Amino acid sequence: MEKIKVIMDVDTGIDDAIAMCLALGNEKIDVLGFTTTYGNRPLNLTTENTLEILELIGRTDVPVAVGAHKPIIKEYNAPAFSVVHGYDGLGDMENPLPNPVTKPLDISAVEFMARKLRESDTPVTLVPVGPMTNVATLILTHPELMDKIEQVVLMGGTTMKGNASAVAEANIITDPEAAHILFKSGLKIKMAGLDATWKGYIGFDEMDDFAAQNWLTKTIHSMCGIYAEHYRDRMKNPGMAMHDSLTIAWLINPDVVKAEDYYVTVDIDGRYTYGMTVTDVNNVLGKPANASVAMGVDREPFIQLIYDAMAKLAAEKQ
Amino acid sequence: MEKIKVIMDVDTGIDDAIAMCLALGNEKIDVLGFTTTYGNRPLNLTTENTLEILELIGRTDVPVAVGAHKPIIKEYNAPAFSVVHGYDGLGDMENPLPNPVTKPLDISAVEFMARKLRESDTPVTLVPVGPMTNVATLILTHPELMDKIEQVVLMGGTTMKGNASAVAEANIITDPEAAHILFKSGLKIKMAGLDATWKGYIGFDEMDDFAAQNWLTKTIHSMCGIYAEHYRDRMKNPGMAMHDSLTIAWLINPDVVKAEDYYVTVDIDGRYTYGMTVTDVNNVLGKPANASVAMGVDREPFIQLIYDAMAKLAAEKQ
Amino acid sequence: MEKIKVIMDVDTGIDDAIAMCLALGNEKIDVLGFTTTYGNRPLNLTTENTLEILELIGRTDVPVAVGAHKPIIKEYNAPAFSVVHGYDGLGDMENPLPNPVTKPLDISAVEFMARKLRESDTPVTLVPVGPMTNVATLILTHPELMDKIEQVVLMGGTTMKGNASAVAEANIITDPEAAHILFKSGLKIKMAGLDATWKGYIGFDEMDDFAAQNWLTKTIHSMCGIYAEHYRDRMKNPGMAMHDSLTIAWLINPDVVKAEDYYVTVDIDGRYTYGMTVTDVNNVLGKPANASVAMGVDREPFIQLIYDAMAKLAAEKQ
Amino acid sequence: MEKIKVIMDVDTGIDDAIAMCLALGNEKIDVLGFTTTYGNRPLNLTTENTLEILELIGRTDVPVAVGAHKPIIKEYNAPAFSVVHGYDGLGDMENPLPNPVTKPLDISAVEFMARKLRESDTPVTLVPVGPMTNVATLILTHPELMDKIEQVVLMGGTTMKGNASAVAEANIITDPEAAHILFKSGLKIKMAGLDATWKGYIGFDEMDDFAAQNWLTKTIHSMCGIYAEHYRDRMKNPGMAMHDSLTIAWLINPDVVKAEDYYVTVDIDGRYTYGMTVTDVNNVLGKPANASVAMGVDREPFIQLIYDAMAKLAAEKQ
Repeated sequence: MEKIKVIMDVDTGIDDAIAMCLALGNEKIDVLGFTTTYGNRPLNLTTENTLEILELIGRTDVPVAVGAHKPIIKEYNAPAFSVVHGYDGLGDMENPLPNPVTKPLDISAVEFMARKLRESDTPVTLVPVGPMTNVATLILTHPELMDKIEQVVLMGGTTMKGNASAVAEANIITDPEAAHILFKSGLKIKMAGLDATWKGYIGFDEMDDFAAQNWLTKTIHSMCGIYAEHYRDRMKNPGMAMHDSLTIAWLINPDVVKAEDYYVTVDIDGRYTYGMTVTDVNNVLGKPANASVAMGVDREPFIQLIYDAMAKLAAEKQ
Repeated sequence: MEKIKVIMDVDTGIDDAIAMCLALGNEKIDVLGFTTTYGNRPLNLTTENTLEILELIGRTDVPVAVGAHKPIIKEYNAPAFSVVHGYDGLGDMENPLPNPVTKPLDISAVEFMARKLRESDTPVTLVPVGPMTNVATLILTHPELMDKIEQVVLMGGTTMKGNASAVAEANIITDPEAAHILFKSGLKIKMAGLDATWKGYIGFDEMDDFAAQNWLTKTIHSMCGIYAEHYRDRMKNPGMAMHDSLTIAWLINPDVVKAEDYYVTVDIDGRYTYGMTVTDVNNVLGKPANASVAMGVDREPFIQLIYDAMAKLAAEKQ
Repeated sequence: MEKIKVIMDVDTGIDDAIAMCLALGNEKIDVLGFTTTYGNRPLNLTTENTLEILELIGRTDVPVAVGAHKPIIKEYNAPAFSVVHGYDGLGDMENPLPNPVTKPLDISAVEFMARKLRESDTPVTLVPVGPMTNVATLILTHPELMDKIEQVVLMGGTTMKGNASAVAEANIITDPEAAHILFKSGLKIKMAGLDATWKGYIGFDEMDDFAAQNWLTKTIHSMCGIYAEHYRDRMKNPGMAMHDSLTIAWLINPDVVKAEDYYVTVDIDGRYTYGMTVTDVNNVLGKPANASVAMGVDREPFIQLIYDAMAKLAAEKQ
Repeated sequence: MEKIKVIMDVDTGIDDAIAMCLALGNEKIDVLGFTTTYGNRPLNLTTENTLEILELIGRTDVPVAVGAHKPIIKEYNAPAFSVVHGYDGLGDMENPLPNPVTKPLDISAVEFMARKLRESDTPVTLVPVGPMTNVATLILTHPELMDKIEQVVLMGGTTMKGNASAVAEANIITDPEAAHILFKSGLKIKMAGLDATWKGYIGFDEMDDFAAQNWLTKTIHSMCGIYAEHYRDRMKNPGMAMHDSLTIAWLINPDVVKAEDYYVTVDIDGRYTYGMTVTDVNNVLGKPANASVAMGVDREPFIQLIYDAMAKLAAEKQ
């Protein structure tokens, strides 16, 4: 069976780190590289975190290219601290991961994606799990490469309830215009948004078991203090949402996601709705669907994929 | 027990007509008058329809005052025909109701509301079931009367799925700025929107039974050809939604509505979201709720209220 | 010769006070009353100031009705202090005018305007020199009275350079939606905006002469400390702009104004252009003109009108 | 003296063609290449026209790279015909220029610009005279090359009167978001907009003389039928505006332009102002200037530069 070629575009915080492990620890996925973006944290931190995770699991063979440090139109006000991911973006552990030794490539994220698309004889899947800036810039710069993109499987958006404004999700609201460009692009899109990702959690009652699996889950678990606190105390969720991982899980096993095809556009000018993924659930506009939208998740098999990938990675590097 | 004093603001199409009957046929409600607005149909038609319904049920003692013929800011493009209510707004019956003999008052809707509020020794409830133009204009013109308004129970809005755009409901999108003024007014608001009103229907399998109740239900039933067709063929609903009546039912018996308190504002400038009731279901903004939003309905007791009111009115005028 | 009937809508600061004197001191103008609005200062202060000026000149026979205290849609953030008009709105004089003895009418600004329009056998000119809120509310509430309005001569707007944002003028940006309603109303409009009003000043070299005319000019002069400072130090103008008076002068002697007919609309949603009077100087849109826009002023005869009116008022009340 | 290295970004219609000649026919300018964009006409036509002009003057040594075919966010509705430039974009001459033999490069406009910037040991000036799409995409893709850009000298914008809407100029309104990105970029900007370019014309009374200069001016003159008609009949201008050439002339001889430093941003969401270059002429916002804006032109020396360049090119290729 042929592996699914992906380039992951990450703003590495905690759930990005887990999604990286899921992608690298599953044999169906062939990660051509990671591109980095500002988002959860500023670009320098998210890039460092990406390199640190690769060093942690012994996969420095996978290339990393640095991307955008700010949105296309909007200002990026990098928060001094993230209530979800901590100051360093990886949970401010007592014993933080060592600073990375490896370096990113000296070509930019967009150049890296363009090169990989050109070189590949089969289409490549893009998996942006931060703001859509890098993917949108690729679309603007390289219209000639669009048919080399198999699909875009993104973490972001919501059909209904926001987490960053009343009706907008954090990745999309951080760069609404970039998301608008993506949803208008004609590319095949799978949107793993809050309708589903809230429901794909590791329960607080499962966390000890998770930590006990192997050295890698133990390390990941020790990152999750702030993250778990956020979901338990602030979000009143029964567990830590594994947002970004749902994109990769959807590729590995489409059955873990319940999806509907909808026409989605992104609001770019409403004072109350800026960054909303406006989803025509009733098809009032009569437009053809441009996205498959995750509306639910089969939680247990989804979480099992994460356990399995961690086990594989842990066994490969003792 | 004291009756609930209401002024209903109507753009009389079919469900407005039924809501008028519910209000006039229930002993808990004291209708001080009707004000009319453009909306489902242009103002001249909705005013005529309002008078015709009052003549039909022998209640020409209830005053009618004519209101706005267009929105505050937006253009009103009166459709040549309404796919929901027909050309005349009352279903284009084979034997239409006779043209009205009675006349509206010679003071405007806003003047009428202001006068009734001033005269009343107890606060009055406003029930707008068309665009919010008249109520908004009252708010602008008479800030000194706000404490004479018990509450505003409106039909309109949606927390999620639109019927007039991807995310907006018809009454609100017709005059978004008016609705914005209302939701910012500080008045106590009950919003009977699509989340609930879709579910408060007379089933297609119940329509023969409805028609057979009395001369009034028979007449109403004969209006409902186009209206039923709309909900069956286009909306794929199991019955005819009784949208406007839910406001009055909520007043008569609060238990028929399942409601949540939310902060709601109305989008007035998004190109994709204009007229959306932006509802902060997750309370991301941390603002205090300004509306009680109907999220569900107990269908059978709700519909029974309509049956009962029709029976009472039918008995009163043989 | 028949006098021109006007209702002035004022947010009485210094130039409003002078414009009131011009209107009351010229025999061509018949002031039916003043309506007050928030604007330069909050409503309570502008209303007090209006009454104080009438007491100062002995014209408490002219009725005053209180209007809006905030814009239609926008928030009104009443500044703690006005750099143009001072804290009290009349220049914070060492010996301020006495608190008013007279009271405003007990009907609202809109009710007053409606009553005067209904009662008048000839059309009346409205002269709003603050935010357009009261006039817009009248338009919304009383469409039946539009043909009783001769024209609206307003102070506000600019075709080019703003004074409250890069491209917006203060009166209009304070309530953009109100101005939008006015410019879309179909009423005949004369717009005395910054293109002309900057040029209609009393020169700093003329101020001593102005003060020396009579007891009234002396009092007015003593209000003008802060106001003159603003125009000299901050605005680098050769004198104090007599903004609001240009409306009345235009009515008295149309020759003092150089005007062009343009199509004007008011921006209500641009993040950089909110409140701009978008003026189609090149007629690119091909729409018929809806306003006569003052583009220049014949300064000396304009200022002379103010001198003359002050002299008349001063002589009438020694 | 060192030549000024420029990359011109063109949507070649008639005034672009003349600007190309001015740049290639003046010894102070070193054109590193042309990049093409949609705009006056669709991308295939503007690219063909660019190649045709280079063949006409025997300068096929200058490389051409193909850029964007549509705006970043907005739709591009390519007009069936251009009332300014004709169907083919070069005036629909009776004897049109032959189809180009040469081919554009096989790298994109952005890749070409990036390569030239990287290779150059001194900063390069970008001269976009169509929509700003290519330059904006370069900014998004290559933040690391910004210090290799000497400045951006653009044709577009207006401080006051539009030609494509009441307040917007055609190049900017075609891709407002691209222009927004450029003006926010921090790059040094010279804006040759309508305030000046309308005034830099070849008079209708000078056209015979222009045509008589040499074989090249004769050919250019024969392109100008539709173009001249537009400025004479529709625009009521005393001659054909040489819009795009003003950018190059400004580089050759800064004295031909009267400029002011202003803070400029581009409106991206106003329904009436979309695409306006919002210029803070009064510095109301107090922000530092980000552009030198051409407000006037010294017409005769400007036009002479065009004559001289044409003469040089005509002499070099008999």
